[in-house]
Amino acid sequence: MRDEFGFIQSIIPKKTYQPSLVTGIGDDAALFRGNSEYEEVICLDTMVQGIHFKKSTMKPFHVGYKALAANISDLAAMGAIPTYYLVSIAVPKKGWTDTELDEIYQGMNSLAKEYKMDLIGGDTVSISSELVISVTVMGRVEKGRHLLRSHAKDGDLVFITGPLGDSAAGLGLLLEKGLNHPYNESEKALIHAHQLPDPQVKMGRILAESKVRIALNDISDGIASEANEIAEASQVTVVLQYDKLLISKALLNYPDEKREKWMLFGGEDFQLIGTVPKSEWAAVFEACKKSGQTIQEVGYIKKGEPKVILQKENHEKLLAKEGFNHFRTEE
Amino acid sequence: MRDEFGFIQSIIPKKTYQPSLVTGIGDDAALFRGNSEYEEVICLDTMVQGIHFKKSTMKPFHVGYKALAANISDLAAMGAIPTYYLVSIAVPKKGWTDTELDEIYQGMNSLAKEYKMDLIGGDTVSISSELVISVTVMGRVEKGRHLLRSHAKDGDLVFITGPLGDSAAGLGLLLEKGLNHPYNESEKALIHAHQLPDPQVKMGRILAESKVRIALNDISDGIASEANEIAEASQVTVVLQYDKLLISKALLNYPDEKREKWMLFGGEDFQLIGTVPKSEWAAVFEACKKSGQTIQEVGYIKKGEPKVILQKENHEKLLAKEGFNHFRTEE
Repeated sequence: MRDEFGFIQSIIPKKTYQPSLVTGIGDDAALFRGNSEYEEVICLDTMVQGIHFKKSTMKPFHVGYKALAANISDLAAMGAIPTYYLVSIAVPKKGWTDTELDEIYQGMNSLAKEYKMDLIGGDTVSISSELVISVTVMGRVEKGRHLLRSHAKDGDLVFITGPLGDSAAGLGLLLEKGLNHPYNESEKALIHAHQLPDPQVKMGRILAESKVRIALNDISDGIASEANEIAEASQVTVVLQYDKLLISKALLNYPDEKREKWMLFGGEDFQLIGTVPKSEWAAVFEACKKSGQTIQEVGYIKKGEPKVILQKENHEKLLAKEGFNHFRTEE
Repeated sequence: MRDEFGFIQSIIPKKTYQPSLVTGIGDDAALFRGNSEYEEVICLDTMVQGIHFKKSTMKPFHVGYKALAANISDLAAMGAIPTYYLVSIAVPKKGWTDTELDEIYQGMNSLAKEYKMDLIGGDTVSISSELVISVTVMGRVEKGRHLLRSHAKDGDLVFITGPLGDSAAGLGLLLEKGLNHPYNESEKALIHAHQLPDPQVKMGRILAESKVRIALNDISDGIASEANEIAEASQVTVVLQYDKLLISKALLNYPDEKREKWMLFGGEDFQLIGTVPKSEWAAVFEACKKSGQTIQEVGYIKKGEPKVILQKENHEKLLAKEGFNHFRTEE
């Protein structure tokens, strides 16, 4: 394997995008110019081999892509513009080649390029067993325009930005049949949703720029979990109408029982769930439509205990914060 | 073990320090107000059990303390004021108790309090074998005042900010005799240097505020390695005078051969090495003295290939970039 110095040299970006960057990789820390007109946004997310991905479900490119995508999705949920990222990677002494490591960075790089994000730091260490990748991302949002989970109020409408459950269905296929099965087009779409999720940055920006009071959360752990987070942060009851949830064509091939589980509790779709005052709905809907973005009303907010109620076929049930536990149930 | 929600609740700070903070832990990402008068500084550092620490050399409190200290040291080396930090921790399913995890956070918290840093995010995941802790820190420095490794020029003096080799000597003791040996006072001082290093933030600030052209680097991998980084970044030759290096009383008890190895190649002292124009030395020295900070001239910069020359007892030798490889040589 290359030495650490050689590896670091190989990942230093040849080109940078952000005009605020002063110094990237190569000194004790990275520097970029502050800007009083913005709020800086920062978060991190860690993926562990065997817990969040397996070599039998994700190629190295997907691992890198998804590690960055999950973080960008959190920026999107604040209404932020992505700017920078840093990567900590712990590489097992055996089982990962230099080429595979390069592919992980290529996966991140392809997404970073799309969003003009600069890689400005990181750390590479060795570990005995599983690969661990921890990505820190930064972004910025105009002062006061951030979109918090706590912004929901009685009477607001609840919306989502796209179909749910595809990533979980794709994972199911990969766990059953592996990476190299001859999948049909519809199955390929589900697998794509799992391996190469599309963070909703454009939508987050439309919502931030609308200047409307909007609560927003990204659906990383399933809509049941994320709707509960909005309910708790805003101290309101969220009512979700099952029949209004968006479903992809590919998922229509499966029985409703499976679909419901994936749509409500399946994680990593990285769509957004949010709330908007009823009076602003038409304007927000128009702004999304104009930009070619999907937005679908799927319920409403009412006064009451912080909880989530699911309406389905004239029945109501409490929707618990049951997240998606990755491989916990499959193994 | 507590569930993740309970754990996150337990680490949310009861009190915050930074006036620029808008939202800390609890939403998709943290938010803080930008400031056009400053440059934002960011870096991360990862420690892996068995590579960077062992349970036989570090108590959980020390692990947390040192993980944050190593990062703060990088901020110090840019002349920055620490502000925020985020923590990614991968916890093995066996071998770490809730109490030990709490102690890791207490270790970080004790240092964060000293520097008025707010914990604003993180991620907690499980892993099969070794604990991995990755800390991202942020700080800020007045626009244009940052201190880079590339600032050294022909004729500058080279300085360090304190004694070297103590941490490596302390590690040697711990590996040989363990945590619970009845150490004498002098040995305890070396062990303290290893377990609870003191990042040189105050010194970094004095140097940044001096407005002098200063190159600066923190000594995390041994002065041989760090002096070479300055030589490479500035494209100059660094001359170090061995007899001028600072040595602690505790280290005087060891034979010169061991001392030399620890002082030149021992890592994790977290002192600073820097350069300053000769004409500014007196002023910088006075500013440090006035603040009770140690600064010691230990060599000079001359034109030439990027390399480091060590002068000792009228001999000169090339000092290679041989870093401190943690436990690699001991195991």
